[in-house]
Amino acid sequence: MSHFPFTHDAMPANEITLPTASDFHIHLRQDAMMRMVVPRVAEGGVSLAYVMPNLRPPITSTEQALTYKAHLEKLAPNVTFLMTLFLSPDLTPDEVRRAKQAGIVGVKSYPRGVTTNSDSGIESYEIYYPVFKVMEEEGLVLNLHGEIPSDDEKDVCFMNAEEKFLPHLAQLHADFPKLKIVLEHATSKAAVDMVKSLGDTVACTITVHHLELIVDDWAGQAHHFCKPVAKYPHDRKALRDVVAEGHSRFFLGTDSAPHPHTAKETAHAHAGVFTTPLVLPYLATILDSFGALDRLQGFACEFGKRFYGVVEKDGHGGRTVTLKRTSFAVPQTYNFEADVVVGTEAGGVVPFWAGKEVGWRIVKG
Amino acid sequence: MSHFPFTHDAMPANEITLPTASDFHIHLRQDAMMRMVVPRVAEGGVSLAYVMPNLRPPITSTEQALTYKAHLEKLAPNVTFLMTLFLSPDLTPDEVRRAKQAGIVGVKSYPRGVTTNSDSGIESYEIYYPVFKVMEEEGLVLNLHGEIPSDDEKDVCFMNAEEKFLPHLAQLHADFPKLKIVLEHATSKAAVDMVKSLGDTVACTITVHHLELIVDDWAGQAHHFCKPVAKYPHDRKALRDVVAEGHSRFFLGTDSAPHPHTAKETAHAHAGVFTTPLVLPYLATILDSFGALDRLQGFACEFGKRFYGVVEKDGHGGRTVTLKRTSFAVPQTYNFEADVVVGTEAGGVVPFWAGKEVGWRIVKG
Repeated sequence: MSHFPFTHDAMPANEITLPTASDFHIHLRQDAMMRMVVPRVAEGGVSLAYVMPNLRPPITSTEQALTYKAHLEKLAPNVTFLMTLFLSPDLTPDEVRRAKQAGIVGVKSYPRGVTTNSDSGIESYEIYYPVFKVMEEEGLVLNLHGEIPSDDEKDVCFMNAEEKFLPHLAQLHADFPKLKIVLEHATSKAAVDMVKSLGDTVACTITVHHLELIVDDWAGQAHHFCKPVAKYPHDRKALRDVVAEGHSRFFLGTDSAPHPHTAKETAHAHAGVFTTPLVLPYLATILDSFGALDRLQGFACEFGKRFYGVVEKDGHGGRTVTLKRTSFAVPQTYNFEADVVVGTEAGGVVPFWAGKEVGWRIVKG
Repeated sequence: MSHFPFTHDAMPANEITLPTASDFHIHLRQDAMMRMVVPRVAEGGVSLAYVMPNLRPPITSTEQALTYKAHLEKLAPNVTFLMTLFLSPDLTPDEVRRAKQAGIVGVKSYPRGVTTNSDSGIESYEIYYPVFKVMEEEGLVLNLHGEIPSDDEKDVCFMNAEEKFLPHLAQLHADFPKLKIVLEHATSKAAVDMVKSLGDTVACTITVHHLELIVDDWAGQAHHFCKPVAKYPHDRKALRDVVAEGHSRFFLGTDSAPHPHTAKETAHAHAGVFTTPLVLPYLATILDSFGALDRLQGFACEFGKRFYGVVEKDGHGGRTVTLKRTSFAVPQTYNFEADVVVGTEAGGVVPFWAGKEVGWRIVKG
């Protein structure tokens, strides 16, 4: 029996029931922000979170990853957290083997300087080939932030940094055909076309917000500013089309990245869009808007787990979430508390579509 | 005798003396903001200001323009203000003739919805052909905000709205070859190429900030956000190259557009960069950075007046301004007072490059 939201005579359903979703790219932060965000994961209909390692300092060892995972599990015992390491010259083949033994799933590569806490990221991949070789052997996944640094001489800027990265992706896949590689948060038609053209070991995450935004939407709108930036209408259309097609190597990774609103509504806004508390309501509304609601289950709940070959923690794989077609306003802010230990102030995070109406609500999950 | 900043043996000069500059595209606002901005025009080394008509309500009649001009002259008696009308369906051929008689110089066309106060702007030019015909006969200048509205279906967005406008410019020039047309605040190589390819009645203004910024610089940086948005490195290079070439149909129009900082550092920032108080220091620094300081005089002081065929008010055409190579910090803010009449609060405008070092200072002017 199908849970797709269309009945046999093609009348739109007003209620859909899906397996709980998997978010294959999430920033859960530290300290007070972490304590606000992590309980929101399940609120958004998500029971599996693939956790980014760009903390301060970044997670570069198995030990750090396990410590962080313990914090997360304490805050959300019902969520499966899959951990990653931050790719840096400090990462050794031995550490990769140790990580695999400890259940760590992937290694995240940031280009130098293009995203939050990525100053220690990379510019060239060749020095990492010994690490990639072991990752391929051990079955760890390589997660790529696919942008090259801006360069005036080469005409590289935020608008084409992803497209100009794609030859690196193709080269990595050619050199490590059995290594599972995920191009993270794709924003361009070029990226969709490239991933499609490569083999079954290459997949791609797509965020909630990149299915909705174009360049116009982040021009002067700090809460829509993220990296990679949203691009042209034809790029957004390519992302929507590949979701509507139900291509199984394209799946949800929200890149939800909370920042205090004071770090957004300022002269130099931090990059990131916060979608965690309402992932499935946003997604259902957006997919509905372009006639792809029937692809929600594959995109958000199935394809990612299948590509990664992962299962959720014992007892948490069979849950469902029910969404009802009913309009409600997105909260203006999600507040976090002061943190006396690290000395940070209380504040709020403005979520995606703050104050706007969303068309689907989680009624059971 | 030349005032160019290079001596005979090509040693860089540390002091240059130029005629006072002309800004052929400036927003001087109303009320308290106007009272702060207008006295800054001369501070920036500018003695001629070509004034945009997008007030609330927009300036659509000769009478409004003359009233506004009287306010401006009272605030800055030594500056020549050249006035414009806002193109709208209300503008009649008779009003154009009346405007000419009253010394009004041009008519500004805004595409609907793309810029501040342009809701009553235009989408198609054909309804204005009777007006353009009279402008051509009377010698009024047509000033074009050269962007078409964003359109998902046609893949039009802020990044290509100018390029996709250019066929309209070519068509207008073909239909009215004797009408002087200025493409305002060009941001793209495509625009530079198009203007170059057209006849001597078509010119182009370039802002201070578009000689410096690319898309990366306004991503998350509200004070660099303006319309049209800054684009790719190769676009900035085309703007720099045409200035360095000394092409006489490309000249200064700053599009300086002050907004209270509360309207910038917020969820929906207003578009505009404020450069008025330091026009020549910014320009000298920027032109110096790409080896075109010797083009400052033509670009900022001569080419515009020559294209428009305008002279400054009696007694104000022969002044000079002297710049010295000396570093100083741009103020963090320019404050304006509360306005009890219109009920606006006091505030500040954050200028371009706030807090950064500028390499040239006006020492006499």
